Amino acid sequence: MAEHGSRRIRLGMVGGGSGAFIGAVHRIAARLDGDYELVAGALSANPDNAKSSAAALGIAPDRAYADYNEMARTEAARADGIEAVAIVTPNHMHVGPARAFLEAGIHVICDKPLSNTLESARELAAVKPRNGAKFLLTHNYTGYPLVRQARQMIAEGRLGTLRVVQVEYPQDWLTVEVHNKQADWRTDPKRSGAGGCIGDIGTHAYNLARFMTGLELEALSADLDSFVAGRQVDDNVHIMLRFKGGAKGMLWASQVAPGNENGPSIRIYGDKGGVEWMQIEPNKMWFCPFGEPRQLMTRGGAMPIGAKGADGAGIRIPAGHPEGYLEAFATLYAEFARVIRTGADNALLPGLADGIEGVQFIAAAITSSKNDSRWTRLGEV
Amino acid sequence: MAEHGSRRIRLGMVGGGSGAFIGAVHRIAARLDGDYELVAGALSANPDNAKSSAAALGIAPDRAYADYNEMARTEAARADGIEAVAIVTPNHMHVGPARAFLEAGIHVICDKPLSNTLESARELAAVKPRNGAKFLLTHNYTGYPLVRQARQMIAEGRLGTLRVVQVEYPQDWLTVEVHNKQADWRTDPKRSGAGGCIGDIGTHAYNLARFMTGLELEALSADLDSFVAGRQVDDNVHIMLRFKGGAKGMLWASQVAPGNENGPSIRIYGDKGGVEWMQIEPNKMWFCPFGEPRQLMTRGGAMPIGAKGADGAGIRIPAGHPEGYLEAFATLYAEFARVIRTGADNALLPGLADGIEGVQFIAAAITSSKNDSRWTRLGEV
Amino acid sequence: MAEHGSRRIRLGMVGGGSGAFIGAVHRIAARLDGDYELVAGALSANPDNAKSSAAALGIAPDRAYADYNEMARTEAARADGIEAVAIVTPNHMHVGPARAFLEAGIHVICDKPLSNTLESARELAAVKPRNGAKFLLTHNYTGYPLVRQARQMIAEGRLGTLRVVQVEYPQDWLTVEVHNKQADWRTDPKRSGAGGCIGDIGTHAYNLARFMTGLELEALSADLDSFVAGRQVDDNVHIMLRFKGGAKGMLWASQVAPGNENGPSIRIYGDKGGVEWMQIEPNKMWFCPFGEPRQLMTRGGAMPIGAKGADGAGIRIPAGHPEGYLEAFATLYAEFARVIRTGADNALLPGLADGIEGVQFIAAAITSSKNDSRWTRLGEV
Amino acid sequence: MAEHGSRRIRLGMVGGGSGAFIGAVHRIAARLDGDYELVAGALSANPDNAKSSAAALGIAPDRAYADYNEMARTEAARADGIEAVAIVTPNHMHVGPARAFLEAGIHVICDKPLSNTLESARELAAVKPRNGAKFLLTHNYTGYPLVRQARQMIAEGRLGTLRVVQVEYPQDWLTVEVHNKQADWRTDPKRSGAGGCIGDIGTHAYNLARFMTGLELEALSADLDSFVAGRQVDDNVHIMLRFKGGAKGMLWASQVAPGNENGPSIRIYGDKGGVEWMQIEPNKMWFCPFGEPRQLMTRGGAMPIGAKGADGAGIRIPAGHPEGYLEAFATLYAEFARVIRTGADNALLPGLADGIEGVQFIAAAITSSKNDSRWTRLGEV
Repeated sequence: MAEHGSRRIRLGMVGGGSGAFIGAVHRIAARLDGDYELVAGALSANPDNAKSSAAALGIAPDRAYADYNEMARTEAARADGIEAVAIVTPNHMHVGPARAFLEAGIHVICDKPLSNTLESARELAAVKPRNGAKFLLTHNYTGYPLVRQARQMIAEGRLGTLRVVQVEYPQDWLTVEVHNKQADWRTDPKRSGAGGCIGDIGTHAYNLARFMTGLELEALSADLDSFVAGRQVDDNVHIMLRFKGGAKGMLWASQVAPGNENGPSIRIYGDKGGVEWMQIEPNKMWFCPFGEPRQLMTRGGAMPIGAKGADGAGIRIPAGHPEGYLEAFATLYAEFARVIRTGADNALLPGLADGIEGVQFIAAAITSSKNDSRWTRLGEV
Repeated sequence: MAEHGSRRIRLGMVGGGSGAFIGAVHRIAARLDGDYELVAGALSANPDNAKSSAAALGIAPDRAYADYNEMARTEAARADGIEAVAIVTPNHMHVGPARAFLEAGIHVICDKPLSNTLESARELAAVKPRNGAKFLLTHNYTGYPLVRQARQMIAEGRLGTLRVVQVEYPQDWLTVEVHNKQADWRTDPKRSGAGGCIGDIGTHAYNLARFMTGLELEALSADLDSFVAGRQVDDNVHIMLRFKGGAKGMLWASQVAPGNENGPSIRIYGDKGGVEWMQIEPNKMWFCPFGEPRQLMTRGGAMPIGAKGADGAGIRIPAGHPEGYLEAFATLYAEFARVIRTGADNALLPGLADGIEGVQFIAAAITSSKNDSRWTRLGEV
Repeated sequence: MAEHGSRRIRLGMVGGGSGAFIGAVHRIAARLDGDYELVAGALSANPDNAKSSAAALGIAPDRAYADYNEMARTEAARADGIEAVAIVTPNHMHVGPARAFLEAGIHVICDKPLSNTLESARELAAVKPRNGAKFLLTHNYTGYPLVRQARQMIAEGRLGTLRVVQVEYPQDWLTVEVHNKQADWRTDPKRSGAGGCIGDIGTHAYNLARFMTGLELEALSADLDSFVAGRQVDDNVHIMLRFKGGAKGMLWASQVAPGNENGPSIRIYGDKGGVEWMQIEPNKMWFCPFGEPRQLMTRGGAMPIGAKGADGAGIRIPAGHPEGYLEAFATLYAEFARVIRTGADNALLPGLADGIEGVQFIAAAITSSKNDSRWTRLGEV
Repeated sequence: MAEHGSRRIRLGMVGGGSGAFIGAVHRIAARLDGDYELVAGALSANPDNAKSSAAALGIAPDRAYADYNEMARTEAARADGIEAVAIVTPNHMHVGPARAFLEAGIHVICDKPLSNTLESARELAAVKPRNGAKFLLTHNYTGYPLVRQARQMIAEGRLGTLRVVQVEYPQDWLTVEVHNKQADWRTDPKRSGAGGCIGDIGTHAYNLARFMTGLELEALSADLDSFVAGRQVDDNVHIMLRFKGGAKGMLWASQVAPGNENGPSIRIYGDKGGVEWMQIEPNKMWFCPFGEPRQLMTRGGAMPIGAKGADGAGIRIPAGHPEGYLEAFATLYAEFARVIRTGADNALLPGLADGIEGVQFIAAAITSSKNDSRWTRLGEV
């Protein structure tokens, strides 16, 4: 059913057994544009769950693994072995499988953040992938067409010199103490890393700002809190940002903001204009040329005078018909399929360097917050 | 990759060759939840296009047909023949294939409206499907979770006795004379039927009102226009509605309303409260209990006090992360897969009766408009 | 405190005693820009209420009248008599005072609709005002700056030839049976006239469409309902409109739409673009040039390329700081003050002709509804 | 025309001559509810402008002063002298007149910030007003009904223990170098004080947060910028806030954010719920009880279950009909009129202590920003 006229890429998955959230998202993303076929998995550290989950997904019993190292070895040796693997485990289980598959010459699609520690992230960066295996970090918000449209308009100078970035990601699901599979590992420093909210969604907000603006961070000043009694990691994040070249920013991420479900949003202003985008209405974006009325850009809709549509924007259906989170996610998968097939990299896709920077960002924020919000550089940590 | 632990249903497609819009939508919908595998097609009336389109979709050459009758015969005879077929041709080419596949014992998924003429629609209704083959009409807006939530809340009496329905579907793409594959057949009475806008999107608006409210039409009074010079079918539709039991409604559909991309929306009011929903923000719905503040319901989000979530609502990802048009469409496919596998009908899925009523609605509107907006019953036409 | 460098105009009021709503609105509107001084009143038909209400408003006891005829005679004879009078009584009490003051040479500011019967409205139209006394009908929505901006843009052809008008005015306060001073006279045919909702807010919607578009009505087809048991006048209004020249429209007014407080809104589309405005966010208006992104115009804000601000738009404070209903109302008062001072008419201000047309509109809608929604011209009734 | 049954309060004005913005706002606010009569003024430091501006406002020539000291002396000595004065000069000219009139026993209504220097603000605080003259600082956003509603709901514990405050005030009018009467004094440190954006609008944001939450500031960490070349004061403000008791906040104020006209907005979250309000739609407020759908509260509209309307909320017209900036401003004037008439203070009205704190806030932000965003207490400066 591949739309691109090619046979499907054979895909494996690590993590994503029954009860997981992000694994199901990755599978839909892999299917949506018809580029992948899931044929192997180490879906759970629990062998029984691994087996039953595989069966439920139509994976042949002999390709249902309980151990990712065994899976990497075995699949690399098969003539019909997987060509790519999706790693959808909790944070502390990203680096191990990523290393194993890259060293086995299998392309890696890895959920974010790259790791729960800066040290292990750096180890991964030192790995030499066999046969040029590629790496994709699923910072999925970068797949939204209007996010890319903004990135292009900024690169073309439509906003002029950037001055101010306001980015945020509020949620409310951890407003009170919660215990379930999703909450448990995210609030356990052993699995999520020293950061809680900062790692789970703060990194998304940071990556979104970096991706859209192209600005590099000079330093940050952070104030992290853990509002719920007994919580071991932060659940609310306030950060001031200084970018190289003089632009400034603020970043707010929270898991304790009642009324907010999953609300990443960003506003970027330069000396010629601004753009404003929020995920809860992802098919719209404000373009605010200074001195003119605001223009409401839509996914696939009419362009402002003189602007052009973003290259590679994953638009599947006409303007007005809403696309969403799954389509944005699928766009990363579809574009990575092209990378796999052609060997040509795609500058829009987040990779290892973004992953390292994300983990540095977490570390710098925690360091700054512990030091009374001292301005801290990424390179310091 | 099927999530339901079963092998995938073998699917064929009629129409949907290169350049088609709705065919690609059906294919994504079929893939999204992993229930179908496209293995055969009569993708174009043009044999060369049929062959190359099939190849591009990974369909084996011997299952790329130029004629749907041949396809129905041949596939019904194969041991591994298709179990279901998606019909995504222009309106005048729905009934022929639908009859052929139903009579061959193959389940049918058919785009709307059912037909370009009332006569042919009635013929189809008379067909006896072989082996209990099922029929799905893709009134895709009924797949939105909040549309179903509203339907359930209305059925449970949360709005009280219904009084007023305001439904609309404005677009702007035919504001001027346009010529392309999509526009050409939709403005050609031979292919689209006597109705233009009324058939293409007016039927969606009508079906949405019927699906959500459960109200039956008593009569309608219509005023149809064709604003663009030379256009042979209507491009703007004003209708007043009288429902059995006393509720009243207004329906506006337009292809000449600049600034509107694809904007179906509906507002329903009873003596205890109202609901308001619009496709451009499909993950939200207003619930307006009389005498209390408006409540913003979200897909998968918190429920109003005392309400419960709709059964069968196709929610794949957490509240806040937007789903859209493709997910709603995919929900119809996923639920029809369950019907195929279990043989048990699903009252939420639009079927032949809805298709007949849609064509009657078109005919009644045209009749009323020609008779100076005389109140006209569906049964009259 | 007059901002215009002139002494204030001496104002009287008929109606508006304690407990009235619209009387207080008129008084704020009269004060806001400093053009009027309230010095006399026949504030209530009840002499005690008239006297105490006058005292509460600082009106001298000898100018607190119980009878408007006496007030007109007495004030006209005083050297310091009122120059203008505001009539803020229920509908059936507009024509009597309006005639008395016009014949006494006193300018009249009259609430809408002009009258509860077409016959009395026509009698008023035949009155010869003494000394050129002027008449203002407070169709207050015409005072909103962006309503006027749209009017000008339409007049200048920015939307091209108009095709479609969607106008509505939903409320919910009469969803159930209600008894209070405001509800009682509005649902009593003797005081409000044969129309309920159609007269109270339907006329506002109609006037708004006429004012903004400049289109003249060819005929209407109406379906009026009275949903609440025992209610003697309509509470929900569905109307299809045909304008001279070929444009079409729909008008919905309702007092039984839960969740809607006071929601007049209008959408107007031509072959070059559209505008959309709603009172609940009166400082914004969508301008939708065909083939370009929507532009969000703001009161006092930046103009679309090539457009100019509306003349006479009553903008008091910078863009972003919201103005509202009272400011729009006050603009009518301020502009009428200029008419009084200079004697020069202002084409933007609604007058007697608008009042007559409004009462004709009510009559035509009722006639059409009684005749199974037959298309009815204003001139027929 | 006073609605309160009393004669009007005799009002004077310092500043507000022709070309001024805020003076005209104060005059409308004073007139709107009919409590004041403007009878004297020192409207400009330029004697000719003072005289002609007074004439244009209907002030008698002998009460048009060129010097505020003379005005204070003379008016205090007249039997019909002013009872209150509105001070609407640039920041550096607030303290002088305020002292003069308070010492003359005349009530003072003063625009914010209280002063351009902390020193002079403290001097004013030491003044002993004659005859118990009262002081009102026009932090006008506190007059919005829904701002007060939120304040009351927070005080009643409807949000639980407060945790997070996000407040902002973006504008765009100083995105480029601008020269006009409004811009000139605001960007001149001699007149505006050391703060630019922080003083002009940052103080409004801070006051709004303080007023609504009742939280007291522990310390702040600020990063101020002046983005436009040659500008001598800040035009963009990033601040992190720590409140006593543990709540945290972020404050953004900017004059260089294209597309933002006058956009103060605030979001407040506690462990039981949140509220969100923005000035551009001031008649709405989100109430977000944790675990339930968001509720849209409206000015004068239905209350959430169990909540009650705020006392003293200045609601003049029914829900749905929008009120705005001028009405909120007028509410402060109307309530101060009651204070003047009765001698009873009103805890909702901002006074001298708020003024001092505002100037301290400016000083602390500037100090923190100069010290690499060191956390700074108000008491330190």
